[in-house]
Amino acid sequence: MAQKKTRKRVAKAKPADRSWQARLSAEPAGATVSYGESLSFDRRLYGHDIAGSIAHATMLAEVGLISEAELGAIRAGLEQIGLEIEAGQFHFDPKQEDIHMAVESRLIAKLGEIGDAGRKLHTGRSRNDQVALDLRLWMRDRIDAAHRGIITLQRALLAQAERHAGALMPAYTHLQRAQPIELGAYLLAYIEMLERDSDRFADCRSRANISPLGAGAVAGTTLPIDRLRVADLLAMYSVATNSIDAISERDVAAEFAFCCTITMLHLSRWAEDGILHASQEFGFLTIDDAYCTSSSMMPQKRNPDLLELMRGKSATVLGQFVGLLTLLKGLPLAYNRDLQEDKPMLFKAADTLIGSLAVAAELVEHSRYSVERLAAAAGGGFMDATSLAEYLVGKGLPFRKAHQAVGEIVKIAEREGKTLADLSLAQLRAACPQIAKDVYGSLGPANVVAKYRSLGAAGGPPLAEQVRQWKERLA
Amino acid sequence: MAQKKTRKRVAKAKPADRSWQARLSAEPAGATVSYGESLSFDRRLYGHDIAGSIAHATMLAEVGLISEAELGAIRAGLEQIGLEIEAGQFHFDPKQEDIHMAVESRLIAKLGEIGDAGRKLHTGRSRNDQVALDLRLWMRDRIDAAHRGIITLQRALLAQAERHAGALMPAYTHLQRAQPIELGAYLLAYIEMLERDSDRFADCRSRANISPLGAGAVAGTTLPIDRLRVADLLAMYSVATNSIDAISERDVAAEFAFCCTITMLHLSRWAEDGILHASQEFGFLTIDDAYCTSSSMMPQKRNPDLLELMRGKSATVLGQFVGLLTLLKGLPLAYNRDLQEDKPMLFKAADTLIGSLAVAAELVEHSRYSVERLAAAAGGGFMDATSLAEYLVGKGLPFRKAHQAVGEIVKIAEREGKTLADLSLAQLRAACPQIAKDVYGSLGPANVVAKYRSLGAAGGPPLAEQVRQWKERLA
Amino acid sequence: MAQKKTRKRVAKAKPADRSWQARLSAEPAGATVSYGESLSFDRRLYGHDIAGSIAHATMLAEVGLISEAELGAIRAGLEQIGLEIEAGQFHFDPKQEDIHMAVESRLIAKLGEIGDAGRKLHTGRSRNDQVALDLRLWMRDRIDAAHRGIITLQRALLAQAERHAGALMPAYTHLQRAQPIELGAYLLAYIEMLERDSDRFADCRSRANISPLGAGAVAGTTLPIDRLRVADLLAMYSVATNSIDAISERDVAAEFAFCCTITMLHLSRWAEDGILHASQEFGFLTIDDAYCTSSSMMPQKRNPDLLELMRGKSATVLGQFVGLLTLLKGLPLAYNRDLQEDKPMLFKAADTLIGSLAVAAELVEHSRYSVERLAAAAGGGFMDATSLAEYLVGKGLPFRKAHQAVGEIVKIAEREGKTLADLSLAQLRAACPQIAKDVYGSLGPANVVAKYRSLGAAGGPPLAEQVRQWKERLA
Amino acid sequence: MAQKKTRKRVAKAKPADRSWQARLSAEPAGATVSYGESLSFDRRLYGHDIAGSIAHATMLAEVGLISEAELGAIRAGLEQIGLEIEAGQFHFDPKQEDIHMAVESRLIAKLGEIGDAGRKLHTGRSRNDQVALDLRLWMRDRIDAAHRGIITLQRALLAQAERHAGALMPAYTHLQRAQPIELGAYLLAYIEMLERDSDRFADCRSRANISPLGAGAVAGTTLPIDRLRVADLLAMYSVATNSIDAISERDVAAEFAFCCTITMLHLSRWAEDGILHASQEFGFLTIDDAYCTSSSMMPQKRNPDLLELMRGKSATVLGQFVGLLTLLKGLPLAYNRDLQEDKPMLFKAADTLIGSLAVAAELVEHSRYSVERLAAAAGGGFMDATSLAEYLVGKGLPFRKAHQAVGEIVKIAEREGKTLADLSLAQLRAACPQIAKDVYGSLGPANVVAKYRSLGAAGGPPLAEQVRQWKERLA
Repeated sequence: MAQKKTRKRVAKAKPADRSWQARLSAEPAGATVSYGESLSFDRRLYGHDIAGSIAHATMLAEVGLISEAELGAIRAGLEQIGLEIEAGQFHFDPKQEDIHMAVESRLIAKLGEIGDAGRKLHTGRSRNDQVALDLRLWMRDRIDAAHRGIITLQRALLAQAERHAGALMPAYTHLQRAQPIELGAYLLAYIEMLERDSDRFADCRSRANISPLGAGAVAGTTLPIDRLRVADLLAMYSVATNSIDAISERDVAAEFAFCCTITMLHLSRWAEDGILHASQEFGFLTIDDAYCTSSSMMPQKRNPDLLELMRGKSATVLGQFVGLLTLLKGLPLAYNRDLQEDKPMLFKAADTLIGSLAVAAELVEHSRYSVERLAAAAGGGFMDATSLAEYLVGKGLPFRKAHQAVGEIVKIAEREGKTLADLSLAQLRAACPQIAKDVYGSLGPANVVAKYRSLGAAGGPPLAEQVRQWKERLA
Repeated sequence: MAQKKTRKRVAKAKPADRSWQARLSAEPAGATVSYGESLSFDRRLYGHDIAGSIAHATMLAEVGLISEAELGAIRAGLEQIGLEIEAGQFHFDPKQEDIHMAVESRLIAKLGEIGDAGRKLHTGRSRNDQVALDLRLWMRDRIDAAHRGIITLQRALLAQAERHAGALMPAYTHLQRAQPIELGAYLLAYIEMLERDSDRFADCRSRANISPLGAGAVAGTTLPIDRLRVADLLAMYSVATNSIDAISERDVAAEFAFCCTITMLHLSRWAEDGILHASQEFGFLTIDDAYCTSSSMMPQKRNPDLLELMRGKSATVLGQFVGLLTLLKGLPLAYNRDLQEDKPMLFKAADTLIGSLAVAAELVEHSRYSVERLAAAAGGGFMDATSLAEYLVGKGLPFRKAHQAVGEIVKIAEREGKTLADLSLAQLRAACPQIAKDVYGSLGPANVVAKYRSLGAAGGPPLAEQVRQWKERLA
Repeated sequence: MAQKKTRKRVAKAKPADRSWQARLSAEPAGATVSYGESLSFDRRLYGHDIAGSIAHATMLAEVGLISEAELGAIRAGLEQIGLEIEAGQFHFDPKQEDIHMAVESRLIAKLGEIGDAGRKLHTGRSRNDQVALDLRLWMRDRIDAAHRGIITLQRALLAQAERHAGALMPAYTHLQRAQPIELGAYLLAYIEMLERDSDRFADCRSRANISPLGAGAVAGTTLPIDRLRVADLLAMYSVATNSIDAISERDVAAEFAFCCTITMLHLSRWAEDGILHASQEFGFLTIDDAYCTSSSMMPQKRNPDLLELMRGKSATVLGQFVGLLTLLKGLPLAYNRDLQEDKPMLFKAADTLIGSLAVAAELVEHSRYSVERLAAAAGGGFMDATSLAEYLVGKGLPFRKAHQAVGEIVKIAEREGKTLADLSLAQLRAACPQIAKDVYGSLGPANVVAKYRSLGAAGGPPLAEQVRQWKERLA
Repeated sequence: MAQKKTRKRVAKAKPADRSWQARLSAEPAGATVSYGESLSFDRRLYGHDIAGSIAHATMLAEVGLISEAELGAIRAGLEQIGLEIEAGQFHFDPKQEDIHMAVESRLIAKLGEIGDAGRKLHTGRSRNDQVALDLRLWMRDRIDAAHRGIITLQRALLAQAERHAGALMPAYTHLQRAQPIELGAYLLAYIEMLERDSDRFADCRSRANISPLGAGAVAGTTLPIDRLRVADLLAMYSVATNSIDAISERDVAAEFAFCCTITMLHLSRWAEDGILHASQEFGFLTIDDAYCTSSSMMPQKRNPDLLELMRGKSATVLGQFVGLLTLLKGLPLAYNRDLQEDKPMLFKAADTLIGSLAVAAELVEHSRYSVERLAAAAGGGFMDATSLAEYLVGKGLPFRKAHQAVGEIVKIAEREGKTLADLSLAQLRAACPQIAKDVYGSLGPANVVAKYRSLGAAGGPPLAEQVRQWKERLA
C-alpha cells in the first residue's frame, strides 16, 4: 500500500519534471526519448552547467529578477547537485532529455519546500544559449588541458634531445637518406610543429572564451538581464553580440576540432617515424618492454603498438572532425537539433588528443635511441654530396655546375663501393679540378654537420642556438 | 630461497593472465593498458568470438589436433562463459587487452582442473585472423539487421502511399514547384533509394561472409587445419585465399561503412523533406506530438527534433566512415595495430543506421499529410506549363518552340494573377494559334497527373503500376 | 671530334634541360613525366617564384655569394621571364617537372651568353624550401583576397539591412517559427560569422607569413646565407626556425584550407536560407532574373541556381580540405613527394571561396525581400508566447510557471484559430489571473521586438546598437 | 536582305542560343554565367551526350513523335558535331551553360535551313534525365577502363611473382618481422585486394547501367515515349522505375567514387610498402632510374617519387569522394543544382585512379627485388619461433605452453646473439624437454616456408596452388 502511494507520488512528480513540454498533448514516445536524449553523453558537462547557472542566478539577483534569498537557495541547491553527481548518487533519467533539464528538474524538486526559486532559474535564458555556454566553458577547459599536454610532450622531446646531444643521424627526404643532421634537430622539428598547434589552440581560445548566455532561444529577451556581468563572473572575455549567431554557430567548435586534428596528424607523423625507427631494418629506437606488446601466436614478437594506435587514432579524430563539419553544411538559421550531434564528436576528438599527448610524452621518456646505429646510418648514402657541392661553390663554381659534378663523383664512388671521403684526391680532382686538399674537411657526417651555418640548420651552431632558445622557453 | 619461490609464484601468476606476453620482460605500463586495450568496446563481439572458437575447436578435434574430450570441455566452457557475459557476471579486466584474450584466459582458468584443453584452443590461429573473423560475423549479422530495418521502412512508406492514394502535390526541383505529381510517387522515390541500399548491403554480405580463420598471424600455419570446414560450420560461403590479405584487409569493413553512410544520406534527404514539410510555410505534414518536442523558453513550440537528429546523425556516420578510410591510407602490409580503431567507428555507424531506420519507420506511421494543403500547393506555380508544352507538341509544334511559347503564356498569366487554366481560349490562342478548346484537358494538376504516360512517371497509370509492383515485392 | 660534337649536342640537349638529374642514368619514362609533373598546375605560382628568387639573389649578392653584375643579370632575366609568362609566350615543358625548374632553366638559357649567373641562382636553396616559400607567398596573397571578399559581402549585408530597416520577420529554430525579430538582426548574424572567419584568416596569415627559404633540402646549408634578410625583402614577419620542419610541414596550409572551408560552410547556411526564402512557400525573397535560370523542359521555372551551387561548392571545398588532411596522415619526416598534391586542393579551395564571396555579395545586392510577406509570417505561429511569459515574470510569476501557463494559453488560441493578441482579457485572465490590461503591449510582433532589451537581442534598441557598431567598423 | 541577314545574325546570337530561358526577363549576369556554367568540365561528356541523343531520337521516330527524315537530319547533325568537337573545331560558349545545350543549340543552328528537326530533339526529356544518363554512360565506360587497369596490374604482379619464384622474405606485422614467407605470397595479397575492388566495380556497373532517360524533369511525360527501347539502344540493362528518384539520386555515383577510393587506398598501401622496400634500410627493391627523380640540391639522391605521389593521390581521391558524399547530405527532393558539382569530383577520382593503375603496372615491370637482401632479412628476427611452437604442438604440448616456452628460448637466443637454429639441442631441450633432434627441420626460413600447410598460407604448396589459380584466372 505504502509502496503504491510512493509510486503514485512519483507519477505525480513527473509533470513537474517536464513542465517545459506543456505545449504537447502526448507523452513522448519511446523512440523520442531514446533517439533524442543527450543525457547519456552531455552529463559530463554538469560542472560547466552548474557554474553557468550560478553565474546566471547571481546576475538575476543583482538586476532584481530574483531575490537574494532565492539566489542563496539556488546556489546551495546547485552545489549540492554537483556533489551528488560527483558522488555517483544522481539519478540520470533519459526523459529529462539533457543535462540542463536534469539539473533544473532536480533543483526544482530539491527546493520544492522552500518556494519557487528553482522555477526562476531559467528566467531570461534558453537551453540554446545554455548549451552554447556549457560547450564553450568545456572547450576552454580542454584547450588548457591540450596546452599542458603539448608542453609536457615538448619538454620530453627537448630532454631526449639533450640526452643524445651530439648524436648524428640521417635526415630523410622521400624516405631516402638526404643529409647528415643531429638527432636533436630532428626532435626539435616536432617541438616546432607542436608550438604552432599550441598557438592555434590559443587563437581558438580567444574566440571560445566569449559568452553566448542571454541570447536566449534566438532573439534575446525583453527582461533587463546583464550579459556582460555573467561573462565577467565566468572569467570570459566578452559576450557574443548577435543573439541569432550566438545560439546557432558552431564554427568555434569546428575550429577546436581542427586544432585537435592537426595536432593528432603531427603525432601521427611522429608515430610513423617511431614505427620505422623501431623496425629491425632501421634499428634506431628501442621502446621499453612495458610499452610494447607481443603476439598471441608468434612468441618472438615485440610490437610498438602504442605508436600504431596513435597513428590510427589520428584517423579517428579526423573522422570526428569531418563529421562535425558535415553537420554544419546547409543548415538554415538558427538553432537546429542536428547540433546536438556535435558533442559526441567533440568529446571523442578532445579525449583522444589529450590522451595521446600524455602517452606520447611517456613514450619519449621510455625509449632510447641507438647512437651507434644512427651514426652508422649517417655515414651511408653519400649524404655529404651537398656539402661537397657547397664546397665547390666556395671554390667559385656555379652551384648548378657543382651539383652536376658531384652527381658524377657519386656515381664513381658508388661504382667503387666507397664513400666520398674514401675517394683519393686524384680521383676527386679528375672529376672536378677545383677540388683541393681541404675538401676532406667537408666530407663525412661529423664534418658536414659542424659546418652548418644557416639560421635553423639541422646541426652545428644553428642547432645549439635552437636548443638554447627552447630551453629558455620551455623552462 | 623463499624470495625465489615468491618470484616464481608471481611468475606463475602472470602467465595464466597474460601468457602470450612471455617475450616481454616487464609488466605493461598503465598507459599501455589504458591506451591499448580494446576490451571496453570489442566485448560486444563476445557471441561471435565464442561461436568462432567453437567452430575452430570442432575442426581441431576433427583433424586430430585435440581430443573429443578436450573439445567437449572447450565447448562447455565457452558456452558457460557466454552465459556469464550475458548475465553480467563476467569480470572484464582491461589487462586482458581484448575480448579474445579475456575469453581464452577465462576458459583456461575454468578448465584448469581438468587438464590443458583451454591452452590448446589457440592452436593454428592468431588474434589477427580471429578478430577478422569476429568482425565479419558481426557485419553479417548487422547487414541482416539493416535489411530488416530497410524493409520495415519501405513497408511503412508504401502503407503511407496507400493511405493517401490519389493525393496531389507539387514535385520540386531547385526547391521551386516543378510539376504536379501524386504523393505516392514522392514516397516511392524513397523506396527505390532504399532498395539500392539494400542491394549494396547484399553485395557487401557476399564479400563479408568469407572466413579468414586459419590465416594465422599472417602466414598461415604448418599444422594440418581444415579452413573450409570452419567456414562451413559458421555458414560462411568460402575462405579468404591469401593469408596475408586475410588478416590485413579492411576494405570489406569500409564497404560496410559505405553502405551505412549512403543509406543515412538517403535518410538525411528524407528528413530534410520532412522538416520542410512540417514547417508552417509548407504545412504539409503533421508529426504526432509524441514524436515532437517543445522549447525550454518558448511555450508555443512544436519541433520535429527527431528528423533533425536523423539529418545530423548522417554526418556522424559519414564522419566515422571517413575516419575508417583514412585509417587505411598508407598502411604497410600486413596487420598493424591501427586497425583496432576500426571497431568503434564501425559500431557507431551500424548502431546509428539501424536505430535511425527504426525511428524513421515509426515516424512514417505517426505522421499525417494534409491532403488539402498539398492539393492547394499543387495548383500553384504554373506547374502545368510542361503539360501545355507537350500538348502543343501533340499539335505538331517542335518542343523547343512550344517551350518558348508557353514561357510567354506563363508571363501573361503571372501578370494577370491567374492560373493557366484561368486564361481564356482567346488569350491562349493569341499567344499560340495552335491551341484549341481541348487544351483545358491538359491544364490543372489533376488533369496533368492523369495524363502521365511514360514508364515510371510520377502519377497516373505509371504510378499505379509502380505501386502494384512494390506491393508484390514487399508483401 | 665528331663524337665529341655529338656528345656536346647531347649534353646541350639534356643537362641544360635537366641538369639536376645528373645522378640518374636514364631519361625519365613517359609515366614519370606525366604522372610526376606539377607544372600544369603550379605554373600559377610563377609570380611568387620569381619574387622569391629575386629576393634570394639579392641576398646572395649582399653576402658575396654572387656578384652585383650577376644579380643584375638574374634580376633582369627573371623579370623578363615574368613578362613572357604573362604574355603567354613562355613554353611550359612538362619535362621541367615544376615551375621552379621551368623558370631556372629558362634563366640559364637566357643568360647563357653572359656567363654563369643563372647557374648560381640555386645556391643555398632547394626546391623543398622554394616551394614552401612560394606556397606561403601565395597563401598570404589569397588571405588578403579573402579578407577583401569578406568585407565586400559584409558591407552588402549591412546595406541590405539598412535598406529594410524596421522590417519584421520570424526567427526560426528547428525551422519552426520561434520569435519575432527584425530582418536586420538576421542579416547581421551572417556578418558576425564572417567576422570570425576573417579573424581566423588573420591568425593564419600570421603563421603563413614566415619564410622557410634557406632551410634548403632539409638541413640548411654550410654557406653563409642571410635568411632574415630574404624574409625582410619579401615583407615576411620572420623565418621558420627549424630547417626540417620548415620544408616538411603543411599544417599552415591545412589551416588555410580550414579557413576556406568554414567560411564556405557559413555561405552554405546563408544559401540554404536563401533557397528556402525564395521558395513559393516562404515567398520572402526575390532574386533578380539575371541571377536565376529556367528549365530546359519546364517553361515556367525560375530557379535560384547560384545559391544551390554555393551550397554544393561548400561540399567541394570541404572535400579538398579533407583530402589535404588525409595527405598528411602518417607521413614520415621530412619532405615527401606526396606533398605535391597539396596544391590542386589548395587552389581549388581558395578559388572556390573567393569566387563564392564575390557572387554572394552580388546576389545580396540583386535580391529583394518582400517586407509584406515577412511581416505576415512574423504575425503567425504564436511567436509572442515568450514575450508573454516574460511579461508574467514581470508580474512576479516564476518563469517555469509562466512558461507552462502560456503553453496552455497557446493551446486555447490555436483551438479558437486566434492569435494571442486576439484573445480577450477575460480569456487570458481565466488561464492566468496575473495578466492585466497592459498585456497587449507585450503581444504582436512589433510590440515584442520593440521590447527587446538584452545586449545583442534581435531587434529594438540592442539591434540599433549593433547596426551602429558595424557601420563604424565596415566604413 | 541586309535586314534579314542582321536578323539572322541576332537570331543566331541569342534566341537560338538560349531559347529555354524565355521565362526570364533579363540576360544572365556575368556571375550567373561564370559561376553557373559547367561547360568547361562537362564537355568531356559530349560523346555520351550525343549517343544518348541519337538513341532518344531513334525512339522518338519509332513512336511517331518525329519523322524518319527528321531523325536522319538529327543523327547526321549530331554525328557531325561529334566530329567537330573531336577535331577541336567546336566553339564552346559558356553562355550555353552545359554540354547538353551547347550540342542542342549547335544542332538547331546546323539544321536551321532544313526545318525544325533540331528543335524537336528535346521532346519528352529534360536536362535532368539527360545529364543523369550521360553520367551513367560515362561511369559504365570508366568502370570498364578500371577493370582493364586492374587486370593489367594484377598480371604485372603475377609476372613479378613468377620472376622471383622461391624468393624468401619476412612478412611483417606491426612493421616487425613476423614469419618467413615467399615473395610471391606477398605480391598475391595485392592481387586479392584488387580482385575485390574489381568485384565492387562490377556490382556498381550493374546499378549504373540502367537508363534514367524519359524521367524528364522530375515527373516523366504525357507523351507516348518508349523508355525501354532507349535503354535497349544504349545496351543498358533496364530503366529506373521512379522518375523522381531517377533524376535526383547520385548514390550510384557515390558508389562509383567509393570503388575508386578503396582501390586507391590499396594502391597507397602498395606504394607505402614500395617506399619502405626502396629505402637504404630495407634495400629490398630497386626501381629503374627512368622511374626515379633526383634532387635540385642534393646531387646523390634517387627518389621513388612516383610511389609517393600514388600514396598522396589516394588522399586526393578520398577528398573528392568525401566532397561528393557531403554534397548529398540533407538535399531535399528532387533535382538541385548542387548536383552539378558531382562531375569535377567524379572526373578527378576516376582519372586519378585509372592513371595510377597504369603507372603502378609500369612500376611493377620496371623494378627488381634483391633476392639476397630479402633472404638475409628472412633469416633474422627469430621468425621461425611460431614454427617451433607448432613443432611442439606436434609433440603434444598445448599451444599456449609451447608459445610460452618458445618465448623463453627466443630470449636465450637473443642474449647469445644467435638464431634459433644456431642453438644446440642441449640448449633447446634444457628450455623444453619435448624438443628432439628433428626440431631443426622446423627452423630456418626455408624449412618453415616449406612446411606451410593451411589453405592460403604464404608459402610452400598452398602458395603454389594460389599461383596456379591466378595464372588460370588472369590468362
